[in-house]
Amino acid sequence: MPAPEPDLPPGGERLGIVAGGGSLPVVVAQAARERGMVPIVARFADGISNEAITDLSRAFPWGRTGDAIDWLYAEGARKLVFCGTISSRPDFRSVIPSLRTLRILPKALSIVRGGDDVMLRNLSRYLETRGFELLAVQEIAPRLIAPAGVLSARPPRPREMLALAKAHRAATALGVLDAGQAAVASHERIIALEGIEGTRDMMRRVAEFRKAKRIGRTESPVLVKAVKPDQDRRFDLPSIGIQTIEEAIAAGISAIGVSAGESLILGIDDVLDAVNEAGICLMGLSRDEMDLRGDVQS
Amino acid sequence: MPAPEPDLPPGGERLGIVAGGGSLPVVVAQAARERGMVPIVARFADGISNEAITDLSRAFPWGRTGDAIDWLYAEGARKLVFCGTISSRPDFRSVIPSLRTLRILPKALSIVRGGDDVMLRNLSRYLETRGFELLAVQEIAPRLIAPAGVLSARPPRPREMLALAKAHRAATALGVLDAGQAAVASHERIIALEGIEGTRDMMRRVAEFRKAKRIGRTESPVLVKAVKPDQDRRFDLPSIGIQTIEEAIAAGISAIGVSAGESLILGIDDVLDAVNEAGICLMGLSRDEMDLRGDVQS
Repeated sequence: MPAPEPDLPPGGERLGIVAGGGSLPVVVAQAARERGMVPIVARFADGISNEAITDLSRAFPWGRTGDAIDWLYAEGARKLVFCGTISSRPDFRSVIPSLRTLRILPKALSIVRGGDDVMLRNLSRYLETRGFELLAVQEIAPRLIAPAGVLSARPPRPREMLALAKAHRAATALGVLDAGQAAVASHERIIALEGIEGTRDMMRRVAEFRKAKRIGRTESPVLVKAVKPDQDRRFDLPSIGIQTIEEAIAAGISAIGVSAGESLILGIDDVLDAVNEAGICLMGLSRDEMDLRGDVQS
Repeated sequence: MPAPEPDLPPGGERLGIVAGGGSLPVVVAQAARERGMVPIVARFADGISNEAITDLSRAFPWGRTGDAIDWLYAEGARKLVFCGTISSRPDFRSVIPSLRTLRILPKALSIVRGGDDVMLRNLSRYLETRGFELLAVQEIAPRLIAPAGVLSARPPRPREMLALAKAHRAATALGVLDAGQAAVASHERIIALEGIEGTRDMMRRVAEFRKAKRIGRTESPVLVKAVKPDQDRRFDLPSIGIQTIEEAIAAGISAIGVSAGESLILGIDDVLDAVNEAGICLMGLSRDEMDLRGDVQS
């Protein structure tokens, strides 16, 4: 028997935002307001700071996922969107579980088993049984989706196209392995592959390679963030923002590619200003075209 | 017309050792002496120190590959073995080339284009045209080859077997991409993937993840070093030694797998003492068995 509907506060339709770190949750909340929805934000562990969110919001430690879900439900949210990055995963033995966490612990433990993708798929199935509908970020904020083709003022050089194809192939292989989303390559070779450290730390590594002269002067390293081939599009689409561009500049990256139609660009105006000022090429890579180039190249 | 044979110094057959870093070149030189050969060692860039080699040896900067090849030929070496790690690649514009380097520069540049594997294949083809025969390390020192099965006192736990299969799948995928050889995974997920930084720096990263609690307490990360599926077995077989074990201990690695029959264990007695004392499981992974486990798992 479903729980009785609580008295909902007045206003538009509630959107529950389960928020990790980065600027994406703030952007999504803004887009939701523009669509007449009322954002309610459950912030997790290393998620966004309280100050960035003017909406009803509450912080939850990992281990209190049960509380967060109950809270969002009680506040009237029936639609949920997951966004933002999570750099550490729950260690259920390291927190004193609340009663509600204890109740869902067996479920939660089966959720965190497996790579991110499996975890998210399990999580979404569980939430649907609890009466939520899961939305994709792009349903709330379609403007964030990266278009196909050259987005920067400067088109790619031939060497950069080779490097983009190489990095795209590597980033896609990482996706098949359910590992990271990002890879850095030059036209000659693959330089760095993202594991659990995330794109930012991988880029710092590339900056160190550069400093240590482990990247040749004739190599123009490029960054590609690609969607996992079988990824649930409601979770964790690859995204870049102004911070990515700053990291790319620090790492000596000369071109950036993202999955066209399947990745997010946060703050496109600022991003384009930054890449154009730095002379970086930015492209939305269509999967079919990349596959073709990969075949020609190998 | 081939160059006239120089007067060879007395003694056994010369073996030219093109030596990178690590302990492998020293082990190979010792094994060559035991087989009655006379090692002649060309040391490269960040290669082994002069003190470690009691044989005729000479250091060469990258960019003087032509000189090294001429020197080995002049010293009577007709058989060559490549061994040891190279952590930075030549930047031909950063060195003042010698006359001989200038002569082979176009060839050398085509050699360094492409990932390590392509580079090594091109290099071997070039050296064969110069009158050398290329040997595999395992032809000189067959005892170094890792056998199949459990090598440590402790057999793998079920979770470690899952993690070994996952890391083996990832390390092999890196090989297909012509990127690194090593991956770290737990039974839940892939944690780190080797790019140009090499296994040691990747392991330092895992140690940092552990410190930052980005690896759960219930995860037992395992390290796998796997041979590239289409690798020329005369070059750069995956290898582990006592230093790998020390790095593994520092990173909280609970099991280590290497390609059975296609990878090297340097100083097997010390390695076994170290893993057994630390309670680490060490296995030679047969490719067929791993493929099967990977299928069952996914």
